[in-house]
Amino acid sequence: MWLAHELADVFGVQEKLTSASAQRIYDQIAAKLATPEFRPRALYARFNIEVLCTTDAATSPLAHHQAIRDSGWGGRILPTFRPDALVNVDAPGWRQELDRLSEVSGIDVGDYRSYIHALEQRRAFFKQMGATATDHGVASPYTQELTDAEAEAIFARAWRGAASADDARRFVGHMLMEMARMSVEDGLVMQVHPGSFRNHNPALFARFGSDMGADIPTATEYTRNLHPLLAKYGNAAGFTLILFTLDETTFSRELAPLAGHYPAVKLGPPWWFFDSWNGMMRFRKAVSETAGLYNTVGFNDDTRAYPSIPARHDLARRVDANWLANLVVRSVIDLEDAHEMAHAAAYALAQQAYRLS
Amino acid sequence: MWLAHELADVFGVQEKLTSASAQRIYDQIAAKLATPEFRPRALYARFNIEVLCTTDAATSPLAHHQAIRDSGWGGRILPTFRPDALVNVDAPGWRQELDRLSEVSGIDVGDYRSYIHALEQRRAFFKQMGATATDHGVASPYTQELTDAEAEAIFARAWRGAASADDARRFVGHMLMEMARMSVEDGLVMQVHPGSFRNHNPALFARFGSDMGADIPTATEYTRNLHPLLAKYGNAAGFTLILFTLDETTFSRELAPLAGHYPAVKLGPPWWFFDSWNGMMRFRKAVSETAGLYNTVGFNDDTRAYPSIPARHDLARRVDANWLANLVVRSVIDLEDAHEMAHAAAYALAQQAYRLS
Amino acid sequence: MWLAHELADVFGVQEKLTSASAQRIYDQIAAKLATPEFRPRALYARFNIEVLCTTDAATSPLAHHQAIRDSGWGGRILPTFRPDALVNVDAPGWRQELDRLSEVSGIDVGDYRSYIHALEQRRAFFKQMGATATDHGVASPYTQELTDAEAEAIFARAWRGAASADDARRFVGHMLMEMARMSVEDGLVMQVHPGSFRNHNPALFARFGSDMGADIPTATEYTRNLHPLLAKYGNAAGFTLILFTLDETTFSRELAPLAGHYPAVKLGPPWWFFDSWNGMMRFRKAVSETAGLYNTVGFNDDTRAYPSIPARHDLARRVDANWLANLVVRSVIDLEDAHEMAHAAAYALAQQAYRLS
Repeated sequence: MWLAHELADVFGVQEKLTSASAQRIYDQIAAKLATPEFRPRALYARFNIEVLCTTDAATSPLAHHQAIRDSGWGGRILPTFRPDALVNVDAPGWRQELDRLSEVSGIDVGDYRSYIHALEQRRAFFKQMGATATDHGVASPYTQELTDAEAEAIFARAWRGAASADDARRFVGHMLMEMARMSVEDGLVMQVHPGSFRNHNPALFARFGSDMGADIPTATEYTRNLHPLLAKYGNAAGFTLILFTLDETTFSRELAPLAGHYPAVKLGPPWWFFDSWNGMMRFRKAVSETAGLYNTVGFNDDTRAYPSIPARHDLARRVDANWLANLVVRSVIDLEDAHEMAHAAAYALAQQAYRLS
Repeated sequence: MWLAHELADVFGVQEKLTSASAQRIYDQIAAKLATPEFRPRALYARFNIEVLCTTDAATSPLAHHQAIRDSGWGGRILPTFRPDALVNVDAPGWRQELDRLSEVSGIDVGDYRSYIHALEQRRAFFKQMGATATDHGVASPYTQELTDAEAEAIFARAWRGAASADDARRFVGHMLMEMARMSVEDGLVMQVHPGSFRNHNPALFARFGSDMGADIPTATEYTRNLHPLLAKYGNAAGFTLILFTLDETTFSRELAPLAGHYPAVKLGPPWWFFDSWNGMMRFRKAVSETAGLYNTVGFNDDTRAYPSIPARHDLARRVDANWLANLVVRSVIDLEDAHEMAHAAAYALAQQAYRLS
Repeated sequence: MWLAHELADVFGVQEKLTSASAQRIYDQIAAKLATPEFRPRALYARFNIEVLCTTDAATSPLAHHQAIRDSGWGGRILPTFRPDALVNVDAPGWRQELDRLSEVSGIDVGDYRSYIHALEQRRAFFKQMGATATDHGVASPYTQELTDAEAEAIFARAWRGAASADDARRFVGHMLMEMARMSVEDGLVMQVHPGSFRNHNPALFARFGSDMGADIPTATEYTRNLHPLLAKYGNAAGFTLILFTLDETTFSRELAPLAGHYPAVKLGPPWWFFDSWNGMMRFRKAVSETAGLYNTVGFNDDTRAYPSIPARHDLARRVDANWLANLVVRSVIDLEDAHEMAHAAAYALAQQAYRLS
């Protein structure tokens, strides 16, 4: 669906994509991409984008963001704070990440206390550069608060390269709590993307490196795992926690009830494999009876394919329009409700949830 | 859907519920509720209710039930035996519950043997007061028979306030087996409602107490957990075990195959979050190809909102009528079958499963 | 659906099956079955079957297969290699299975090395007798490669009747790896059928023995369990691993992503309880957006009821035709695509996946 829309609407391709037409279409796209009308800023205007957010390592100096600001261009490109590499204490390059953190923060990170301090400083910097949100990729949404002494001890073991897998798991669970605490304090919206088994295919990883495919979903548990975090921060004024999933079984069983109950919790749109016609339709049908529409955050795509942006948003709008029309014809809602809900799903909810207005 | 139906049909509200009309509609409802036509017994007659069952602590003297009987009123209000508070040996008030049990049963409960004896006595009393069923709310449907010595030892530890979490889990699993044994003996229908993480939000609990919301479902396993119970009692003549779930993934994977196989097992209607249009439709589509219609128990609502009863049953009937009509137009069943199945789903199955005729 | 089709199309029954007509219909079927037109080879021709595969114990001498070959009949009946009884080292009759293996292979099986050698020899024999595939029924798709020393030690413990449950689990996981290695070498297609809790009802088992019903599905995990096997063989040229499931939640979460990524992985059709109208439709909707059609293997029934074969394939074709028509009317695919995909789903994919052409 994306390709069909993108080829026709963005690149003006009229013929069907087949093995016979592929080379012709490739040449046609390459020719278009060489023209000024297909430069990123031109497409930004043509796609009618209001805001585009990147995800950036917590240690990034955000030089490109600064360059955009300095250029005087009117587009709104915002960074998002992603501290995963600093939090996974048993990852091979963790110590080098800390060095980078010391460097960009100007804080000599050598223990748990200075580490937390430096993270807070980086969040403040991101916020100053326009960030409104953080993002956390975790194997599971396990949360558990450690005492300062426990956190310091694990940090110290990790510093010596002696952290166990269980240390790492507990530290990540603790840092999700810490990130929630900081979000309550600084107002950055917290997003959690759990449940992907990364780099499943070692041959692919050996040849191309990380994040090049072969990430396979796993069953994910939210009710018990998020209990410590939500028990402490789930009712906090102004806190927003946006949950994503790769496990559709949690939509009706765990996520919708959590979003329906806790003021802080909102549901992100269907992610990755489920950012599709059937996936989005299943999402609405599974969560809406418990969580409604207004505990969801509208549609945000997480594409790396810039020209696919219009297609992805168009598809999301069609799914929601279809869903709403179905409710109208069965008299579950009336047309007046449907108009308001359609605008919310397509625009207002994303703007509000991510504090972009 | 419930609210729309209830406002229109029960309270005669004609206008749409909005923030502008809310106060007017509230006043209109309040005025109606003050009239004799809205007294509980008048609504019982108007709603055309044949039987209404309450759930009652196993230690309840059922004084209100006795009062109804003594009043000479013709309505049929039956108690249901719910022993959870006596079975959860690690719950804070367990010892006080035992005192209450001693008091109402007239049996001095001080060890496992007298405890079992007192429970049997309470079941007999409930049955004499019209009960046809028991109900068991458990974290998981884990079952495992303990030896008498093991059961006595755990009971004794619990008596001293020294039961571990594992003691409690094993004791609950054992007591589900004991309750099945008693049901085989006394004919009370056994219902199991597993899988709710109760009181998830401590702030809510601190302010309002237990059972006021913030109960979040968890993944639930039936195939292995129920194996000991079903291996022993699943083929027992006259035994009925009605299973409910908050985990829709078990409908097609575990519950329908169990209900399709074991004579004792029947499936309760979609519970709680799934007592909804989509939830009920998913239930029929997920279970019917394996378990059919006649291994389900029709619709029973578990409402605390008395005026919602007609709406809830009306919705359930519409879902089933819709499901059956869909089977008819695709020639899976014919109209003759559909009529019989519709009557079963709306009336006969509940009457039979709960032994109410 | 199967019965209605089978009674009408295979047995010419015109009246509706009811308690009143049952005896008449039974007699009518019995009379038909006694005629030459209902002998197996006549039905093979009438059903227009091209290939029919049996599953056979790895120790089977395949005498019936040899008899068919010797008979000169033109039907194509192929064996399938099923080594479960040789692999489950803690099963009661395992040692006797090894004796049978020694006998049919002519290899004196007394240690791990000779055991592997004999299995390889049996696969070669099956292949020579026309087999194109193997089949593996396992409690879970757990895989983990043991060192030779570990495998030898477990085998030796099992030989003495001293293998633990954990030994057995690890050995089965190791043997799945070994079977994959042999498939890479000999080209036999590897099928895995995991997740059934066998013989759940001991009363049924005591009366009728194994595989007579009461097999209940369990939740099944593929992403982590298959990681060792796929990391080693998932990209191997010419290797095909066909995965089945009794846990529909894995379709979109684990199986479709695995099939979409690994060249070796293909998805078998909905199995057992899910070989049904709703089950097959859910399968297509859950997997196609991630894995497409061409990573599935078309339809293969696993019936023990010979006259049901036409009904089952007819139903599968109708489901797929319905699914494709739905994609056409919504302009997701065009008619040209649909014709090609329909032929693939009904015929070509099964032929290719099982190397039958």
